[in-house]
Amino acid sequence: MKTQITETDLTQMEQRKRAHLINSVGGFKSICLIGTVDLKGQTNLTIFSSIVHIGSNPPLISFIMRPDSVERHTLSNILDTGSYTINHLNEAIYKQAHQTSARYPKEVCEFDATGLSSEYKANCIAPFVKESNVQLELEFKQRIDLVINNTIMIIGEIKNIYIPDDCMQEDGFLDIEKAGTISCSGLDSYHLSKSLARLPYAKV
Amino acid sequence: MKTQITETDLTQMEQRKRAHLINSVGGFKSICLIGTVDLKGQTNLTIFSSIVHIGSNPPLISFIMRPDSVERHTLSNILDTGSYTINHLNEAIYKQAHQTSARYPKEVCEFDATGLSSEYKANCIAPFVKESNVQLELEFKQRIDLVINNTIMIIGEIKNIYIPDDCMQEDGFLDIEKAGTISCSGLDSYHLSKSLARLPYAKV
Repeated sequence: MKTQITETDLTQMEQRKRAHLINSVGGFKSICLIGTVDLKGQTNLTIFSSIVHIGSNPPLISFIMRPDSVERHTLSNILDTGSYTINHLNEAIYKQAHQTSARYPKEVCEFDATGLSSEYKANCIAPFVKESNVQLELEFKQRIDLVINNTIMIIGEIKNIYIPDDCMQEDGFLDIEKAGTISCSGLDSYHLSKSLARLPYAKV
Repeated sequence: MKTQITETDLTQMEQRKRAHLINSVGGFKSICLIGTVDLKGQTNLTIFSSIVHIGSNPPLISFIMRPDSVERHTLSNILDTGSYTINHLNEAIYKQAHQTSARYPKEVCEFDATGLSSEYKANCIAPFVKESNVQLELEFKQRIDLVINNTIMIIGEIKNIYIPDDCMQEDGFLDIEKAGTISCSGLDSYHLSKSLARLPYAKV
């Protein structure tokens, strides 16, 4: 049997309870750490669960941020430097990653506060998370203000991808389960995965 | 040890291989069936992996579609009727759900073609997937054309939520793992989940 939750129920629901529910109903989410640096060299690291694929050619990824949250450091750093990194979570670091969602003041480096290690690669000025198994270097492309609720969508182009040696299959599929990547649901629930199958391209 | 895949590697990569890789690097994704109906009563059902939470108050969810794909029936139906449903996948129906990605002509109903059952609730004109354990009724709110690659973002407001009786926790968290919801990675890989933990609200 199913429970129905109506629009009226949602409107009357206590704010935090509604946030938990609505963050849960969209299904499992990608969960990643976004690394940035400001013009003075102060690094920032914040967890995001709103990463979504936009296209493969050019390779584009987006994420959504609330302007009124701790994530504002991430936004200003991306706009100032044009550079950021996306780092997958795994079982060994998800608790530290979750802790980056605390409202640290700007002068606090979340790497120091959580014990995660920064890592620098090639010419990317933004820090990667060393303990992350799948790391992406992004170049800022576009900011879209979603006037419907004052959130902001950031679109970036993938410049470099760093993956474990044995996780990419012949056809390009990256086995992120083998890489230890985890997912999340709701605001605070973390999940390992267990592969069911890869299915062939569907034809009529 | 890690493998580096550079911008040049991506540019030179065969198109289908790049699509597999870039669709994999964003992490695990929500995977849902979107149900719509046209003005003549012809239903459509298509699988989407780009669903993302936009906000809880009002409760908003978005997804991304390519205008040149089979998903165009979904787009025109949403614009014509203002109504659509989002239905979670589970282990019992993911193969049928995947099959909806085949390029059926408009006059073919994906419910009939795949053996999934349509279901109607309250005053919603769009069909739900009966075999889905978590079902959402959405009202179309906004279309945003992403000029960067000609994709389209659709934002909708949640009007009704249907969930299994025993899956919502006291604080509003919906246990979608208990509801049997699965996730996907890449273009064609489906995954069960295994809960690690819910973590407390992070404080400095």
